[in-house]
Amino acid sequence: VNIVEIGEDPGRPLISVIGQGDVPVDDPRYDLAVKLGKALIDKGYRLVTGGYGGIMEGASMGARQSDKYTEGDVIGILKGFDRKASNRYVDIPITTGFGIARNQIVAGSDAVIAIGGGSGTLSEIAMAWQLGRLIIAYRVEGWSGKLADRTVDGRIRYPDIDDDMVYGVDGETDAVLMLDRYLTLYMDHY
Amino acid sequence: VNIVEIGEDPGRPLISVIGQGDVPVDDPRYDLAVKLGKALIDKGYRLVTGGYGGIMEGASMGARQSDKYTEGDVIGILKGFDRKASNRYVDIPITTGFGIARNQIVAGSDAVIAIGGGSGTLSEIAMAWQLGRLIIAYRVEGWSGKLADRTVDGRIRYPDIDDDMVYGVDGETDAVLMLDRYLTLYMDHY
Amino acid sequence: VNIVEIGEDPGRPLISVIGQGDVPVDDPRYDLAVKLGKALIDKGYRLVTGGYGGIMEGASMGARQSDKYTEGDVIGILKGFDRKASNRYVDIPITTGFGIARNQIVAGSDAVIAIGGGSGTLSEIAMAWQLGRLIIAYRVEGWSGKLADRTVDGRIRYPDIDDDMVYGVDGETDAVLMLDRYLTLYMDHY
Amino acid sequence: VNIVEIGEDPGRPLISVIGQGDVPVDDPRYDLAVKLGKALIDKGYRLVTGGYGGIMEGASMGARQSDKYTEGDVIGILKGFDRKASNRYVDIPITTGFGIARNQIVAGSDAVIAIGGGSGTLSEIAMAWQLGRLIIAYRVEGWSGKLADRTVDGRIRYPDIDDDMVYGVDGETDAVLMLDRYLTLYMDHY
Repeated sequence: VNIVEIGEDPGRPLISVIGQGDVPVDDPRYDLAVKLGKALIDKGYRLVTGGYGGIMEGASMGARQSDKYTEGDVIGILKGFDRKASNRYVDIPITTGFGIARNQIVAGSDAVIAIGGGSGTLSEIAMAWQLGRLIIAYRVEGWSGKLADRTVDGRIRYPDIDDDMVYGVDGETDAVLMLDRYLTLYMDHY
Repeated sequence: VNIVEIGEDPGRPLISVIGQGDVPVDDPRYDLAVKLGKALIDKGYRLVTGGYGGIMEGASMGARQSDKYTEGDVIGILKGFDRKASNRYVDIPITTGFGIARNQIVAGSDAVIAIGGGSGTLSEIAMAWQLGRLIIAYRVEGWSGKLADRTVDGRIRYPDIDDDMVYGVDGETDAVLMLDRYLTLYMDHY
Repeated sequence: VNIVEIGEDPGRPLISVIGQGDVPVDDPRYDLAVKLGKALIDKGYRLVTGGYGGIMEGASMGARQSDKYTEGDVIGILKGFDRKASNRYVDIPITTGFGIARNQIVAGSDAVIAIGGGSGTLSEIAMAWQLGRLIIAYRVEGWSGKLADRTVDGRIRYPDIDDDMVYGVDGETDAVLMLDRYLTLYMDHY
Repeated sequence: VNIVEIGEDPGRPLISVIGQGDVPVDDPRYDLAVKLGKALIDKGYRLVTGGYGGIMEGASMGARQSDKYTEGDVIGILKGFDRKASNRYVDIPITTGFGIARNQIVAGSDAVIAIGGGSGTLSEIAMAWQLGRLIIAYRVEGWSGKLADRTVDGRIRYPDIDDDMVYGVDGETDAVLMLDRYLTLYMDHY
């Protein structure tokens, strides 16, 4: 029988990595996703993606490269009911049947990190903003780059977080530093 | 007993008008929404909004000012289950319980017209793009202005629609012209 | 310009009629649905269905036979994004993209009336119960008959409604009487 | 770096355990849930629940008692966005914001096992039936007992599965045997 230490707040934080599903493996952003996936697991986070290809696949593959990876760390939130549609690095394919409205689940995790991104990623960033989530964005081509270091709208989401914005980063080291600095602060408001 | 003429395609087209819920009545964009709501009903369309205040309220009020308005022309797609939360010009409050994921329904109508907008509107435009919808955007402050006359991402949504983009307009006359020109073309693809 | 009288509570009540989509037109329950649809519009209610065939089609056709019918009284809440998939009596096809989770919207209207029904109808009755909705069920073959005059579970939903249950009825006259007696009472709790 | 063996079908099967959230710990069904949760993990499955109390909590606690348990085996699909609302045995709280429509996700896992249950459980069984899922039900008080060894409706879901029904069981040994016998057969159809 396992002895499991249980806190009040269940589970390790869930960090979503979002970005285009059609980024090829030789795109520099794919490599950024691999490194980010690995870094997140190294730091003890769990990974959530939309479960398909491109950035989602890269991050999921990277997660499995971490020495700290244990099976169950990589979650894919799928649009439909076909678990086999997920990329092969997903441990837990959550089949939702909600179509792109499942973006609300991806956007509603404990923090969201965007690498590039088209309209799907944009809808997730916008929803994460609405839901008050911590958002980190890579300064690369795509919507993450356009929104990095900016606010999505003029709303004051948290009066006690002076510099609330989409925090721009250039790589996984910065991204993890941002999580260190901000995650607890934001999660206290969820 | 009514004699109702029934075609193959049920119902008049549903046009969503989207924009911030906190635009005050003395904001010029509120007036634009009133005029647009009226123009849409004048032309025989039905109006869909998110059901709350600001732009949604303005468009709904305007719809009722049309001589062609009949009760039932104004639909509000609400986040929660409280029908009373809708603005008072809504004829049909659809209570969804889906939270902001209900944006998928607003974005998935027959066409979407944005006036300004913050993160909520942005998520709706992004989803409408993903869903292949006709999108028209006012060249005013807010996300509609930033995305007018642009594409949301590089995807070729319809090879046979050369100039597919978020069509920019300056007022209800232009908006209705755009619907005249493009709505059937886009609806053939839904 | 129309002069529209506006109360605090927007819109006429929305009554959902639910039942199997594959009931043929010569099934007695189809005829019950037609009569119910007509009776609901006669009394000033608006009709909501899942938008497809069988009971949903019958009720929608019936609605159009009422002298009080005006275009816009018949709403279909569809699973997908194809408006043409709705039956031809639907005035307002709401395309949701939520699959069968759209049952939450059908179940969350102001009251639900079931005529027969398989697993889909059963999920809607169960959800309507969870959402605290007024539920009326025909004493006919199918889940409406099995649950008529019973409670769905032991929960006390409303301490002030002594006889809260799935109210059994035998036809549209009874069904409308039940709405007369109970609808305001239940809606005060939504 | 881990060497992870990757098949075509990602991840271990996800088995949902459903039942009332208010079953107290001294109810015999709570104990059944604990034993079932343990047995599922013993056999290498992953556990999905609605994430709250009663049967959901019992099954989640039981999962952690298995010698094969690894952190990440217990998933809770929550109604709202508050991860802290989940029971303390949940490893992965998936916050959906879909309300009870999240039942579609619970019902859409690889198989569903019901222990008792009120209206919420009933809606999940009904949805699982609609989605073609393998359903196992304990012959105990509540909806699982009423539907055990029966079909939910007359639809022939799979012509090649002669005895398709809600398979009744009396305990975790039977439940696991049923999974052994039927899970692959059903999953081939998803």
